[in-house]
Amino acid sequence: MKKQLTELQNYLSQNGYDAAYVSNPTDINYFTGFYSEPEERILALLVFPDKDPFIFAPQLEVEAAKKAGWDKDVFGYLDHENPFELMAGHIKDAAGTPAKWSIEKDDLSVDKLESIKSQFPDAVFPGNLSRYMENAKLIKTDEEIEKLKAAGAEADYAFEVAFNAIKEGRTEQEIVAEIEYAMMKKGVMHMSFDTIVQAGANAANPHGGPEKNALVPNELVLFDLGTIHDGYISDASRTVAFGKPDEKSLDIYKVDLEANLAAMDAAKPGITAAELDKVARDIITKAGYGEYFIHRLGHGMGTSEHEFPSIMEGNNMVLKPGMCFSIEPGIYIPHVAGVRIEDCVYITEDGCEPFTHTSKELKYID
Amino acid sequence: MKKQLTELQNYLSQNGYDAAYVSNPTDINYFTGFYSEPEERILALLVFPDKDPFIFAPQLEVEAAKKAGWDKDVFGYLDHENPFELMAGHIKDAAGTPAKWSIEKDDLSVDKLESIKSQFPDAVFPGNLSRYMENAKLIKTDEEIEKLKAAGAEADYAFEVAFNAIKEGRTEQEIVAEIEYAMMKKGVMHMSFDTIVQAGANAANPHGGPEKNALVPNELVLFDLGTIHDGYISDASRTVAFGKPDEKSLDIYKVDLEANLAAMDAAKPGITAAELDKVARDIITKAGYGEYFIHRLGHGMGTSEHEFPSIMEGNNMVLKPGMCFSIEPGIYIPHVAGVRIEDCVYITEDGCEPFTHTSKELKYID
Repeated sequence: MKKQLTELQNYLSQNGYDAAYVSNPTDINYFTGFYSEPEERILALLVFPDKDPFIFAPQLEVEAAKKAGWDKDVFGYLDHENPFELMAGHIKDAAGTPAKWSIEKDDLSVDKLESIKSQFPDAVFPGNLSRYMENAKLIKTDEEIEKLKAAGAEADYAFEVAFNAIKEGRTEQEIVAEIEYAMMKKGVMHMSFDTIVQAGANAANPHGGPEKNALVPNELVLFDLGTIHDGYISDASRTVAFGKPDEKSLDIYKVDLEANLAAMDAAKPGITAAELDKVARDIITKAGYGEYFIHRLGHGMGTSEHEFPSIMEGNNMVLKPGMCFSIEPGIYIPHVAGVRIEDCVYITEDGCEPFTHTSKELKYID
Repeated sequence: MKKQLTELQNYLSQNGYDAAYVSNPTDINYFTGFYSEPEERILALLVFPDKDPFIFAPQLEVEAAKKAGWDKDVFGYLDHENPFELMAGHIKDAAGTPAKWSIEKDDLSVDKLESIKSQFPDAVFPGNLSRYMENAKLIKTDEEIEKLKAAGAEADYAFEVAFNAIKEGRTEQEIVAEIEYAMMKKGVMHMSFDTIVQAGANAANPHGGPEKNALVPNELVLFDLGTIHDGYISDASRTVAFGKPDEKSLDIYKVDLEANLAAMDAAKPGITAAELDKVARDIITKAGYGEYFIHRLGHGMGTSEHEFPSIMEGNNMVLKPGMCFSIEPGIYIPHVAGVRIEDCVYITEDGCEPFTHTSKELKYID
């Protein structure tokens, strides 16, 4: 059984919980090595302080869970069966009638909680296991950092493909196709999120999608992409010059790079998340672009890009070795251009190291 | 404002609800024409019986929502702000203090509901809007069926690419790469789910993934794929013969095809979902493969593959014109082979019509 699972059992025991219901597929994978997205079906990992945990899954996932190396029980159910009734039977067999539960409140739907409550009408559900997970995942182990480095190397390769795919007349979407095709041919079947390619003014809409507009020379092109390597992700952004962009575009690139490098330099044990955000934000604000930096400096990452610590105003968490997050200042001037320069990093004893190494000096592509 | 939104307002009014909180991104798209997956951020559509609805979104999605054609208010929030406090302010400005709410219980997380409750401590949340959505989406309009046909045509094209990509030595994953690359080059940027290519015994693990195993001649190859067209999906499966599969494989194909065709023939107004499941299941059971057909016959579909009606034992819903669902009998013999033959169909006045038209006669590929 994985160390992470033993730690969860200790936590349950120490806090008087009789059961934990793990529902987030990424977290089930974290504890069991089995990943599946059950969609509207039911997939759960049940953990008890001093009884064996088990997976409850759609029947058609049972073999896959065993194949993934899970050596405890996997109980399946068929589509026409009542999953929560069956699951309750297995819970009672394994651990009696749990009175006090910890559940992933950020993930579990209201409907599923009502179904669990209907099987255990006297139980209470005070624990939010989502908070436990955030802390459990906050400091990455050396083994986890190796996986994140491997994912980062994949992202660096994706940038290489991406830059080579820039050609006048090609659309943003066609460039996405080239990137993802090259990655799949290398066996990377899932990007960690939809690949973003945005040229010129389209890049001023951060998190907007790649469109059918063809690249024209003399504009900036923004890429934001990442992969999943053995359950751990990469996530990085680069902005490059196709031809000779105008002065304004070049100026926001210069300022954004300065903000990025200053934050990379400041990221070390002892600084708070809010202070780090301010290092980058102050540079952008001083250059007159503060109103165009409309998101936080970064997000924690590891098994997903939604972990702790969030690098933003108001978060006074002190950074420590092993924490992993993105540094991604962005400047988006509507109808003009957008720039984002992003690496994910891990905090070391005296600084930080990025997972991606593609150069951040402005690259000119003819 | 879309007709669907007016209908929801009427429903709220008739059932005494003061507010509906729509959280499922697909449903927000259904009502507003704006699609975004907010991940850990907050995206919601607030609807009231007799006040204007509004979208509440991360600041970086506000422009995209307006660009998508939503002409009512969109209120944004920044990462460091308290979204539920801000949202509550907008709700109170728009509609006072709603006392009785309908929420999407299948989608809304326990944590988000607790956040809403903390802003509206005297409110009650008895309504499950997920049930309303299932019924609202149950009978497709002609306009919706046209979009589903367009998505089906894309899936037929994907099969053409898929069959041409079969080559000895190519891996399942490489074939997925060819399919998705061809689709992206046509502008189909999102498949409706991860494309499945499974050869030989690997296909006996339904909903397992494509692996790195290379195709070898004389086995069946199973494809399950679909696209998203203007918010509506396709979903279809074909199984083809690469070389000359063994007798057992050919026999399960014959039986599965018979089950598929019988169900296609039986699908018409008046039959229940359970009866239709039984038509296919009886044929497979009679042939001795009943224990290897381990999922329901089909699922409802439209804006997603998780709609009503579910075609399974125990569902006595009577089929009516405009209902859309998959017919996908499958036979999976562990360590031997797997077959699934699937079309999604819509019920007509006197039968059903498939959205995909790729031949189901066993295709032999050399």
